[in-house]
Amino acid sequence: MGDTQFALGFDFGTESVRVVVVDLRSGDAVGVSTRNYAHGVLDAKLPGGTPLPPDYALQYPQDWLDGAVGACKDALKQAAATPEQIVGIGVDFTSCTMLPCKADGTPLCLVSGFGNKPLAWPKLWKHHGAKSATDRINRVARERNEPWLARYGGTVGLEWFFPKMLETLEEAPEVFDAAEVWIEAGDWFVWQLVSGPFPRCAPSAIGRSTCQAGYKGLWSPDGGFPSRESLKAVHPRLGDVVQTKMPGRLVAPGRPAGALAAAAADAFGLRPGIPVSAAIIDAHAGVPGAGVADAGTMVLVLGTSACQMLMDKQEHLVPGIAGIVRDGILPGFYGYEAGQASVGDAFGWFVDALGLSHETLARDAAKLGPGSRGVLAIDWLNGCRTPLMDGRLSGAFIGLKLDTTPAQMYRALIEATGFGLRRIVDDLEANGVAARDFVACGGLASKAPLLMQVYADVLGREIRLAASDQSVALGAAILGALAAEPALTPQRTAEVVRLIGKQRTDLSYLPQPPASAAYREVYGVYRSLTSGEGEVAKAMRRLDGLRHTS
Amino acid sequence: MGDTQFALGFDFGTESVRVVVVDLRSGDAVGVSTRNYAHGVLDAKLPGGTPLPPDYALQYPQDWLDGAVGACKDALKQAAATPEQIVGIGVDFTSCTMLPCKADGTPLCLVSGFGNKPLAWPKLWKHHGAKSATDRINRVARERNEPWLARYGGTVGLEWFFPKMLETLEEAPEVFDAAEVWIEAGDWFVWQLVSGPFPRCAPSAIGRSTCQAGYKGLWSPDGGFPSRESLKAVHPRLGDVVQTKMPGRLVAPGRPAGALAAAAADAFGLRPGIPVSAAIIDAHAGVPGAGVADAGTMVLVLGTSACQMLMDKQEHLVPGIAGIVRDGILPGFYGYEAGQASVGDAFGWFVDALGLSHETLARDAAKLGPGSRGVLAIDWLNGCRTPLMDGRLSGAFIGLKLDTTPAQMYRALIEATGFGLRRIVDDLEANGVAARDFVACGGLASKAPLLMQVYADVLGREIRLAASDQSVALGAAILGALAAEPALTPQRTAEVVRLIGKQRTDLSYLPQPPASAAYREVYGVYRSLTSGEGEVAKAMRRLDGLRHTS
Repeated sequence: MGDTQFALGFDFGTESVRVVVVDLRSGDAVGVSTRNYAHGVLDAKLPGGTPLPPDYALQYPQDWLDGAVGACKDALKQAAATPEQIVGIGVDFTSCTMLPCKADGTPLCLVSGFGNKPLAWPKLWKHHGAKSATDRINRVARERNEPWLARYGGTVGLEWFFPKMLETLEEAPEVFDAAEVWIEAGDWFVWQLVSGPFPRCAPSAIGRSTCQAGYKGLWSPDGGFPSRESLKAVHPRLGDVVQTKMPGRLVAPGRPAGALAAAAADAFGLRPGIPVSAAIIDAHAGVPGAGVADAGTMVLVLGTSACQMLMDKQEHLVPGIAGIVRDGILPGFYGYEAGQASVGDAFGWFVDALGLSHETLARDAAKLGPGSRGVLAIDWLNGCRTPLMDGRLSGAFIGLKLDTTPAQMYRALIEATGFGLRRIVDDLEANGVAARDFVACGGLASKAPLLMQVYADVLGREIRLAASDQSVALGAAILGALAAEPALTPQRTAEVVRLIGKQRTDLSYLPQPPASAAYREVYGVYRSLTSGEGEVAKAMRRLDGLRHTS
Repeated sequence: MGDTQFALGFDFGTESVRVVVVDLRSGDAVGVSTRNYAHGVLDAKLPGGTPLPPDYALQYPQDWLDGAVGACKDALKQAAATPEQIVGIGVDFTSCTMLPCKADGTPLCLVSGFGNKPLAWPKLWKHHGAKSATDRINRVARERNEPWLARYGGTVGLEWFFPKMLETLEEAPEVFDAAEVWIEAGDWFVWQLVSGPFPRCAPSAIGRSTCQAGYKGLWSPDGGFPSRESLKAVHPRLGDVVQTKMPGRLVAPGRPAGALAAAAADAFGLRPGIPVSAAIIDAHAGVPGAGVADAGTMVLVLGTSACQMLMDKQEHLVPGIAGIVRDGILPGFYGYEAGQASVGDAFGWFVDALGLSHETLARDAAKLGPGSRGVLAIDWLNGCRTPLMDGRLSGAFIGLKLDTTPAQMYRALIEATGFGLRRIVDDLEANGVAARDFVACGGLASKAPLLMQVYADVLGREIRLAASDQSVALGAAILGALAAEPALTPQRTAEVVRLIGKQRTDLSYLPQPPASAAYREVYGVYRSLTSGEGEVAKAMRRLDGLRHTS
């Protein structure tokens, strides 16, 4: 056993961090451990008691470190791996989760005088406080006809890096002033690894992920970040922010951002010098994690939210698609990312807000046919990401009658997320990017058979399944293994992906033709209500303006 | 006490019958008793177990008689009234609740061989099985440009008399064939009183209410029922139905349909010969019951559903208004009726389907401001009566977010019924029928202070309250008292109405200007989504077609 090598993957989700240790001979995860963040999602108040406005979603950075250390030690123990056997480390993180910090890596929220300022805290991906900032960035970008806008389907998202930064500049200028480094949380964690936990980080050690930068930071290999003029047109004080507050090199996931620093090795129980891959967005890690290393296979990462990722050899600009980034998922492909901002979260809201049970609802909902007996939902409970990219949009139920049951509404929510998915697939195909195959991963892929069958029926396509419940974490470990390769070839990349990212051979979801036929009518109704310029979307935007009234 | 005179009112609601005994000196109710119908609303199966399709709502006619006898005896006892002291009897009933019977008054559902045929049973007002029948009647009426159509806002309602009859003819022709008399339930009950309980009724004793006939049966004093040609154009077998299966005289509420028969007097513990008023629709009884005998005061009857009634000296044809009937409420006025098909029922659905508590929700909802923090409902959970007159429409929630609470949704439902009311008031006013004052009665007027304040704020008008919780039953008693007057003058009518139909002087709801201002925006959003030809209404009609799929 002494010569077995292992790769380590850190997978930072919304509520918890998971660490996997993968055996590089078998490709199997031999150690897995998860830690919930002690403070979870801060959406009502700060740890010190300061109340938060609606739409805020923040996190406590020490939770990330504490959880990662605890889970790492457990997973190593489970794997019976010695520090010498770990050859590479990969990291995925929710995104755009970002924070302001000092030049020594200290998160600003932990600096005296800033603990009670909400905007000094890390903003979680689903923080939706940047509505007016996003509007302004989009307006200016359209006026200036920015060349990068088309790569994002024509719209900058509410959840992205520059909107969150501008929100801070406009609403808490003292926080903006005090921030010496603005950084994605995944890049921040990698920085902690390669330079030693704060307050001993050096900005020169920062390796920023081309994935996060490309999908959430308007960066591209050819054009870099938006120009000084672009940013200045948005806000005079934003003009030199890339030069002054965003230090670091750009590094592709799977390539080393650096080597594990001694102080970090000590904290995590590892040896110094292990190559650490640049971070990747959690959903994107699902692509290699689900065993996909080729063009034309769409990976559905199905969790609290959903991401759809598809690689293609060509660049096609697709209106409404969240991001198209060269080498954004794996080298050699254009990576297309689309997303639905609430999937599991929508079902969770329904169940929790109303005090119901997932099990009972799922059992009753499975007895209903396609169309939930005339109840239709719109799945935008956390805004619409693809294709409308508008956080002001909201969820809806229509078709309610006095005999409507919670099971109809629950099934309608599931179907609505299926219709949202089909719309994304249709839009891509209409623009020349065909999804030939589908592989699902994430918690819902294995735990929600009704949802999976609905998706296969709505799409009219087979959906295969990743073999593991933790494809995303495996994807991080794959990137760790790749970072350890001195010279990475496409063939070697594909080998490692297929070794670790296995798919199930015993189960897949096949479309049932009568159900697929029935869904065509319901999908038509869904489409009729979900145009970005339709009555419903317009009403939702007006209602969003009323959310913060008494 | 021996010379005190009393009037008796029978008030048949959806779930129960109430009997009031009113002292004609003080105008006070001195005896009140209520009995629930033993079989309630039959909407899942018949008493014999036959399952019912969705949208069915039937009743058991023996429940009406049993409940009325029991409640009548209790109320008389409570009032310590002797049979000799009762001078008049009035009856109100839900409408259009109607049934097929034999010529001797026996409901067809109680005739051997018909007990397991759903359409042989009385159809409750909210029975919605006649969708295609209604469509056909409307199509033919528009093609033929029927002169009566404009009195109903241009649309015959799904819940009315001829649609329910045509539904039976088309879907259970053997029931239609066997029916010798088609009759409103209120008229049927009056028939039982003046002719003795079935099977001893004589068709010649039938006195049909001009109110029910006018609002639900397409009848008018000048034109009578629709012509033989009109009905034949709808269905060849319907041509002579008025002549062959709708015997009886037309009698105005407040005028005697006959005198109490000996057998009925015996059953109810009364003396034979007491004048019995023609029946009135329950909601319409609320107008005199709330003390209104003049033009320009809108009476809001707020219960499971809501009716708005307004009298005017002029006839104005108002698009979408449910019915305009001369002398339909009180003699000397055109009676305008509008309605909302689910009000209390909508809140009840939300609370019951989701297992929540009215008290908790109302308390939390009262803490929210106008607009329910961005959640909007559409109140059509039982279809839209006024102004769209379309049972295929349905309820909706929009503006749902992951932090939306049940209290927001509950308040949104309350507000939606307020917006539906305001739309009715606006439509009437735009067509020359101004509501100068508002008086509310019905269960919600006294039990739902949040709803009442929302309505005052949404309307921007004061709403007064009927003094009694049982205005509708008092209205029935008023009609009983009027039926006892040998020659009825408008002055005498107004005197009796004011004596018995008292209003509260200690409480009314006044609009709060900031809330009224805030509702203007939300009402605008509601209007933008509730056009009959809008995206949402179109989608609802398509969804309605999916209700009966598996």
